[in-house]
Amino acid sequence: MKLTAVIMAGGKGERFWPKSRTNCPKQFLSLTSDHETMLQKTVRRLAPLVRTEDVYVVTNAAYTGLVTEQLRGLPPENIIAEPCSRNTAPCIGLAASVIRKKYGDAVMLVLPSDHLIRQTDMYLDTLRRAVTAAEQGTNLVTLGITPTYPETGYGYIRYVRGSGRNGVYKVECFVEKPDVQTAREYLREGTYLWNSGMFLWKASTILMNLEKFMPELYAGLLPIAEAYGTDAFSKVLEERFCTLPSQSVDYGIMEKAENILTIPGSFGWDDVGSWLALGRINHTDENGNMLSGDVISVRSRGCIVSGEQRLIAVLGLQDTVIVDTPDAVLVCDKNSTQDIRQILAQLREEHRESLL
Amino acid sequence: MKLTAVIMAGGKGERFWPKSRTNCPKQFLSLTSDHETMLQKTVRRLAPLVRTEDVYVVTNAAYTGLVTEQLRGLPPENIIAEPCSRNTAPCIGLAASVIRKKYGDAVMLVLPSDHLIRQTDMYLDTLRRAVTAAEQGTNLVTLGITPTYPETGYGYIRYVRGSGRNGVYKVECFVEKPDVQTAREYLREGTYLWNSGMFLWKASTILMNLEKFMPELYAGLLPIAEAYGTDAFSKVLEERFCTLPSQSVDYGIMEKAENILTIPGSFGWDDVGSWLALGRINHTDENGNMLSGDVISVRSRGCIVSGEQRLIAVLGLQDTVIVDTPDAVLVCDKNSTQDIRQILAQLREEHRESLL
Repeated sequence: MKLTAVIMAGGKGERFWPKSRTNCPKQFLSLTSDHETMLQKTVRRLAPLVRTEDVYVVTNAAYTGLVTEQLRGLPPENIIAEPCSRNTAPCIGLAASVIRKKYGDAVMLVLPSDHLIRQTDMYLDTLRRAVTAAEQGTNLVTLGITPTYPETGYGYIRYVRGSGRNGVYKVECFVEKPDVQTAREYLREGTYLWNSGMFLWKASTILMNLEKFMPELYAGLLPIAEAYGTDAFSKVLEERFCTLPSQSVDYGIMEKAENILTIPGSFGWDDVGSWLALGRINHTDENGNMLSGDVISVRSRGCIVSGEQRLIAVLGLQDTVIVDTPDAVLVCDKNSTQDIRQILAQLREEHRESLL
Repeated sequence: MKLTAVIMAGGKGERFWPKSRTNCPKQFLSLTSDHETMLQKTVRRLAPLVRTEDVYVVTNAAYTGLVTEQLRGLPPENIIAEPCSRNTAPCIGLAASVIRKKYGDAVMLVLPSDHLIRQTDMYLDTLRRAVTAAEQGTNLVTLGITPTYPETGYGYIRYVRGSGRNGVYKVECFVEKPDVQTAREYLREGTYLWNSGMFLWKASTILMNLEKFMPELYAGLLPIAEAYGTDAFSKVLEERFCTLPSQSVDYGIMEKAENILTIPGSFGWDDVGSWLALGRINHTDENGNMLSGDVISVRSRGCIVSGEQRLIAVLGLQDTVIVDTPDAVLVCDKNSTQDIRQILAQLREEHRESLL
């Protein structure tokens, strides 16, 4: 069966302010030491499996220019421009409708655009097995990541012990982000995986599940899918999409559906969820500092410093995050990166759009 | 007797990097909330006592342009340009020689150019009494500051208990910067004052002492003073000044001389010795943060943030100093401000002169 990829690239990347801005969020930036953006990396690593003409990018209408610029070979009609953000269920449903209209049916590999994978070969091997599993019956396949520490920032997937066949396991349940105590128990228990947000299924399978568990959304998608490939598409999309219910595919489908399988993977995945990820992904010096840009560091430990043009001098600091841009600099305790949105809230209140 | 002021403005202000730079050090900057520079403040607060034509500024040759620009009414011949830095004894000796040449004799009020005084009226009252004391005999008068806490960054002056006449005390000795234990004892003892580096004496008195305790320096100054007021002055100064011994007036004279008096003052003096001073001098918010410039602060305490054009967002920080300039930003733990020179050393090693 035809294999397609659906890349979700509509996120705002607020946790990566001030580098990530409303007009150029995280997935369109390079946060690693090379110059390729997160989105470009996501597409490039799929190349051995999926042809560019079968890659679809669902993004906010405001970012179609960025997607076009960063993914030169992508056919323009493969960029699906959401007129507003409606979370992952409408995004995936829309892509599935479009794929059904175009191919009749196909396997959809659904991926976030802003994650990092270190071991591409192992990743592709895992994907190949997942494709095989997704082609059969009405399976919903999710990639689970073997946890290496009790992370509290991810949701978890519990698989059925002893259910493994060729590395594919039956899923018992999805669970929300745990507290650290619970996360430790999950690690000890041995049947919990991190929920990576990467899925595989046939377009027909996810649409069947949408019809069953989210009938309102399914009904709302029909006229949009009908218009795909016609001149009316963008008008219909604009009129209808924002009326769809905003919900995640995890909550709307995965926590309710049957036939969910998971393939535990361990291919150097990182969701790059906050500035702290830079300390995991990039080279750190002998004092545990991740220094990028023009940085002089004296007696500092465990810092993450991301500079651009200007010199950043760091002196006697511990566990501090510094991010410099031409018009704003963030200085933040490592334990406070999740509160960056408080800065953004204040900027919004003061109508300082150019800084958002 | 004529009262003159000698303002020492040759310092490099390295502890105020990155705002203070080799080509525009601390004394030529405004570090307080107004726009007047430290040097301008120093001269303006003397206005009721000393006429501008009797104010002399000894500075590095590189800074004569800055002095001219900032002190518009100052006669050009009152700027004494040192071709190199030789500490305070040659600086004061040179000024004394010039003053003797010009006035025969006069009282010299010797002041640093980069200190802050909050209560100008009380300061002027103290100075008037100091002038009276300096006019008599061969007294060397120093302003002592009543200590309010066991500061370890200043030298101390011990006065002779019971020697006070009209608020003027005989000095028993000068002591170097103490450790905190010793500083606490000084405070308890009650006869120790902070050494402010502000002196009053007749030109003839200090020259007499120089001749006695620093004869080599005294001899070296004679031909320079001789040339003052002639076309040869700058050439003679340039040829001779750098051959003079580099020494402080405290070590060279004050620790050895007799007839030293002190006037304890308490007029809101601050030596503005490091970025920490900004937290003492300027308004702080309810969390003890001193924020100047475009700053958004969330859950931060005890921070000193000095911005310019760009937004500085501060999140979950404690006791951190942040100083932003167009080409460099410093982020520094409050306990590490004395190590800024390590940053400068590294910049020098890398020949990055534009940042020094």
